[in-house]
Amino acid sequence: MHSYSSLEALFEPASIAIIGATSDPADPGSIVAANLLNSGYKGKIFPVNAEGEEVLGIKAFSSISMIPRFTDLAVICLSPAEVLGAVEMLAELPVRAAIVTSSGFGETGREGYMLEQHLAKMAKNTGMIILGPNCLGLMNPSLALNASLSVDYTKKGNIAFFSQSGALCNTALDWANSEGVGFSKFISLGNKAVLSESTMLRYLANDPDTKVIVGYCETLEDGQDFLRVAYDTTCKKPVILLRAGGTSSGAKAASAHSGALTGATCAYNAAFRQAGVLQAVDIEDMFNLAHAFSCQPLPNGPSVAIVTNSGGPGIIAADMCEKGSLTVSCPSNSTIDEMKSFLKPYASLYNPVDMIGDATAETYAKTLKAVIEDDVFDSVLVILTPVAKVAAEVEKVAEVILAAAQSSPKPIVACFMGGHSVSGARALLRDGGIPCYDFPEAAVRSLDALTHCHRWQSKDWPIEVCFRRDIAKAQSIVANSRRIGLMELVELDAQYLASAYELPVPETVLARTSNQAAKAAKRIGYPVVLKIASPQISRKDELGLIATNLNTPQELRRAFLEITSRAARRCKDAYITGCLVQAMGPKDSHEVVISFRRDAQFGPLISFSLGGIHADMLGDVSSRLAPLALNDAQEMIREVKAYPILRGARAGTAIDLGCLEDILLMVSQMASDLPEIQEAEFSPVIAGPDGAVVANMRMTIG
Amino acid sequence: MHSYSSLEALFEPASIAIIGATSDPADPGSIVAANLLNSGYKGKIFPVNAEGEEVLGIKAFSSISMIPRFTDLAVICLSPAEVLGAVEMLAELPVRAAIVTSSGFGETGREGYMLEQHLAKMAKNTGMIILGPNCLGLMNPSLALNASLSVDYTKKGNIAFFSQSGALCNTALDWANSEGVGFSKFISLGNKAVLSESTMLRYLANDPDTKVIVGYCETLEDGQDFLRVAYDTTCKKPVILLRAGGTSSGAKAASAHSGALTGATCAYNAAFRQAGVLQAVDIEDMFNLAHAFSCQPLPNGPSVAIVTNSGGPGIIAADMCEKGSLTVSCPSNSTIDEMKSFLKPYASLYNPVDMIGDATAETYAKTLKAVIEDDVFDSVLVILTPVAKVAAEVEKVAEVILAAAQSSPKPIVACFMGGHSVSGARALLRDGGIPCYDFPEAAVRSLDALTHCHRWQSKDWPIEVCFRRDIAKAQSIVANSRRIGLMELVELDAQYLASAYELPVPETVLARTSNQAAKAAKRIGYPVVLKIASPQISRKDELGLIATNLNTPQELRRAFLEITSRAARRCKDAYITGCLVQAMGPKDSHEVVISFRRDAQFGPLISFSLGGIHADMLGDVSSRLAPLALNDAQEMIREVKAYPILRGARAGTAIDLGCLEDILLMVSQMASDLPEIQEAEFSPVIAGPDGAVVANMRMTIG
Repeated sequence: MHSYSSLEALFEPASIAIIGATSDPADPGSIVAANLLNSGYKGKIFPVNAEGEEVLGIKAFSSISMIPRFTDLAVICLSPAEVLGAVEMLAELPVRAAIVTSSGFGETGREGYMLEQHLAKMAKNTGMIILGPNCLGLMNPSLALNASLSVDYTKKGNIAFFSQSGALCNTALDWANSEGVGFSKFISLGNKAVLSESTMLRYLANDPDTKVIVGYCETLEDGQDFLRVAYDTTCKKPVILLRAGGTSSGAKAASAHSGALTGATCAYNAAFRQAGVLQAVDIEDMFNLAHAFSCQPLPNGPSVAIVTNSGGPGIIAADMCEKGSLTVSCPSNSTIDEMKSFLKPYASLYNPVDMIGDATAETYAKTLKAVIEDDVFDSVLVILTPVAKVAAEVEKVAEVILAAAQSSPKPIVACFMGGHSVSGARALLRDGGIPCYDFPEAAVRSLDALTHCHRWQSKDWPIEVCFRRDIAKAQSIVANSRRIGLMELVELDAQYLASAYELPVPETVLARTSNQAAKAAKRIGYPVVLKIASPQISRKDELGLIATNLNTPQELRRAFLEITSRAARRCKDAYITGCLVQAMGPKDSHEVVISFRRDAQFGPLISFSLGGIHADMLGDVSSRLAPLALNDAQEMIREVKAYPILRGARAGTAIDLGCLEDILLMVSQMASDLPEIQEAEFSPVIAGPDGAVVANMRMTIG
Repeated sequence: MHSYSSLEALFEPASIAIIGATSDPADPGSIVAANLLNSGYKGKIFPVNAEGEEVLGIKAFSSISMIPRFTDLAVICLSPAEVLGAVEMLAELPVRAAIVTSSGFGETGREGYMLEQHLAKMAKNTGMIILGPNCLGLMNPSLALNASLSVDYTKKGNIAFFSQSGALCNTALDWANSEGVGFSKFISLGNKAVLSESTMLRYLANDPDTKVIVGYCETLEDGQDFLRVAYDTTCKKPVILLRAGGTSSGAKAASAHSGALTGATCAYNAAFRQAGVLQAVDIEDMFNLAHAFSCQPLPNGPSVAIVTNSGGPGIIAADMCEKGSLTVSCPSNSTIDEMKSFLKPYASLYNPVDMIGDATAETYAKTLKAVIEDDVFDSVLVILTPVAKVAAEVEKVAEVILAAAQSSPKPIVACFMGGHSVSGARALLRDGGIPCYDFPEAAVRSLDALTHCHRWQSKDWPIEVCFRRDIAKAQSIVANSRRIGLMELVELDAQYLASAYELPVPETVLARTSNQAAKAAKRIGYPVVLKIASPQISRKDELGLIATNLNTPQELRRAFLEITSRAARRCKDAYITGCLVQAMGPKDSHEVVISFRRDAQFGPLISFSLGGIHADMLGDVSSRLAPLALNDAQEMIREVKAYPILRGARAGTAIDLGCLEDILLMVSQMASDLPEIQEAEFSPVIAGPDGAVVANMRMTIG
């Protein structure tokens, strides 16, 4: 794990060796050398090539061993076969960090993959920091440093950008240069053999030059680490990520691209949400958000004032606000009175404030002042269509907005609709730090993201919960079942394990005969449930091997006979232990399902839904990654659409939600404690007004 | 209703009078005159002003009465108070069509609204065609006609555009001019006192210059007419509409904007869907789709070949395809073999075809040829990132794509990522008729829309169904209930009405005493249902006034006593007629809900869902506007998420879907026949494997 200071050699090198820089300007090494010189980098540059021939007027070394010791950074531009040898020599000097631009590693198949594994191992053994392979390098405009293959350079700004895909790096540079935006750090991650998104977040969270972190990723290998680092980072500054490879076609393509397997989208979405990462919906959205966060403050709440000189775009903006989490409230009475004094009688004073076509730059100035000073509003969206009088003074409106922003603590974004006629004004706004969009939708989306970030950063601390539990007992149950070769715990063992976590399980007795069953039922108290007991039978419900609501010994005995003979018929090879006699769940109850499975990248993913068709058919499921905090559990229950049922909607029963929250938290604890349990399903959990029981459960051993 | 030929005076005038054109270049009338002259209009121009002073070198008339008779078109640029008088004089001449640019009508409040009503009436009485008021006018580049207030003109193209909002008109012109796109017709509808979206669709459907119709709307006043016209139009050419005002904030804003009430979004969505209208998600989407349809053929199916020189954007594109309705299939074996012969070993040959960074223009040419000729693919998306070798020949790649498109019947769209470095190539593609987007998401969206349009245009004819019914009987039931002042039909009457439509209702008998009830139950056959009968009690279920599954006379008598005494207690003012004895619905059944309500704009909106929480809580409802065709009914049932339940999922019963389709069609027929029924709910409809019965129903009289 690399700390902030340890990455200094990479981002703030005092000296850089370029391995493979020749006099041929088409060689990658020579391109890097030229980029370093052209960007105005002030540190020392040491080209290395076998012939020791001069590169761009700089004396070159003919061997890596000749480079000064403790050189900070080496950029390696060799064929893949030569890379490992070079890294070994560099480590001996030592050189502290390296960028491997060469391709031909994990992205090319098995042989390349093995090469990459070697590289990672070497980094681990020597402590050398390695970016790449198969990457473009990086830029740090604070040091006028362009240690990359990209001829396009960037000006200094406060956006840090990293990307797994080199193509997206180029796109980001192109966008930034045409929009006049700059970067604080610009990083092409490539195959991420050593340095990953998590390492970058850890560094950039503490980078004083960086206000907002933006990235493109396909896979995150170290999910749980990412989750922690991203959470810590988003509490300080916004993190915007675009993730590709979320559908099966995309995942197939991503796997062909970098040789990586993409994890389940559900787990990624949960991770981003729990870590407070803003997920960009597409490339354009990523850039739009980056720009908004780079130059605007966060609003204190969701209330947006929309100021426009045309109705249609105002309506579109109001629609978009409501589709997001923003509100379009009425101005205060005093603001309305004030606006009445200078707006035309046909103007709409409410919100959107439609100043109608007669509006001039002066009208904009007065209206902006009025809404900025109105405590009702947390942020302002200014829309302009170049019609009527204002067409001649579009740039003056831009200046009016910039002046208003000077004295406003509230974020302001603009939308100037149109092409050539407003391009000058757009540039003015952009250069003055006001994001100006072509269409209202993107402007509202930015305000929505800013608002979300404020809500996230001002949230309460999560309440961590630790339950009493008997881990040793739980582990021994799992170990025993493993030893006798079971892939799934038998129900009674699963119950014992659940009890070790103090999960509420119904009283259950194994009965080998109907007589024993009747005796057990008498003790437990009617009505009871009867289920087949067999280590080989898992889906009892589907096979008709459960009888519920048995009220008398007669009913119980009949059910015992039916179930055991049906099991003998339907599951010929199963060893039938007998039947379980179980207390019924609470009356006036609802059935819910709580489960977890292990995601390859992120670990245990806990899910919650109502029973029956709610999960698989209706998709009404909420998910979070373990470990859950109390607020996670609360959100999970309230997030499903069917939640009102649990609150007693439709004259039904309102159940004990606290009890369900506890079960979710205990299950999360269990998933974290016992990695041997691959999957678990608690279904149904029968929840009533005074508590819940886990009536049935299945646990698969990995 | 205006036919195609009747709008000729508006769109193809041989002579135009400008009412209110003075020598002051700031006067709207003078702006229109200057626009007409500057656009190169060849017809006659007659300025009119009170002083009779010359306008831009053209002799003016001092009174409307002096204009030559049978002048085609008048553009009225007067104050609102003067408009009606002018229209009256114009009608006397007669002048066949008028454009009223003046604002100060319905958008300004009650007085303006009355003025607008007068204008509409005048148009109706005189047969004059009137565009506006409160509009910018129109353009017809075929005639070099700019009869509008907009100084920006458009070149000739094949996109027709109309908009309720003037601001959106300006935005569209700006967009078109900066993208080099042209319009066939360009229309600002304004307040739509006379000419509406439907009139425009009717005209543009037959306009040989128009290939694709694009519009922005907030409200559609003549919903059912729109539905018919739009359906007929979309069978001939694509119609793309952006609708604003769909959320309550947006609707509030729209209502302040044009004084119109926006209808329920649900009805609009149903209307657009049933009419085959493509709904744009935002302004940018509207323009992107317009451009794609204007220059590309429709694909024959959903299979897209993605050709790229960089992995990331290819993954994003594949993701987007799957999120839409497109497929990313493997190329055929022969194509794979062919590509192997010229692509690098690390290239990904499957789909996306990632030619990797080494690709040159020549690689693009060969790969494009291979996938175009492969029968597996219906359309092609070409992605370029300006990296490595291809950076120097980006424009050559554009030429390669244009050449490939020449000989390809399949649609091709491009995505060139980046800023300045690819702008020349983008312009080349655009001018050559290949849409080129900045980001892959928009490119895929366009292919998705083209594919959808092909599917729509090649769909089967809808199967119209007409059921036997006794309208006279139904009408007399409604009339009788109205006469005695009921707002809701009593249950037995509702049943009689349902029977008149041959809806399957359970046998039902009104029993005034428990003796009568027992006699009725004996005839019907146990088990039976017992319900309170009272004209004042409507929500029987919620009040506990229904008992089901009564198996014996004892149970029946007890239930009779309970229900009637509970009703007497809980509904003190209700007149209790007795109880209804009803046959039970089929066993092994599922409950569904079928209902309709009248939308202000579109008329009856039929809804379908499963019973219980599915409709209001889970929102799992499908809706269509009446009249339903058979395929509509089939789609409605299959569209809800819970559909698998009706097919017998989870070891449940598979029910008779045909019977449900019939009920939907009969309900649609009822809604169309009987406008007096404001709302009706058939809930539950109990559907079993061999038929269904409508067990309960409520009908509200308007």
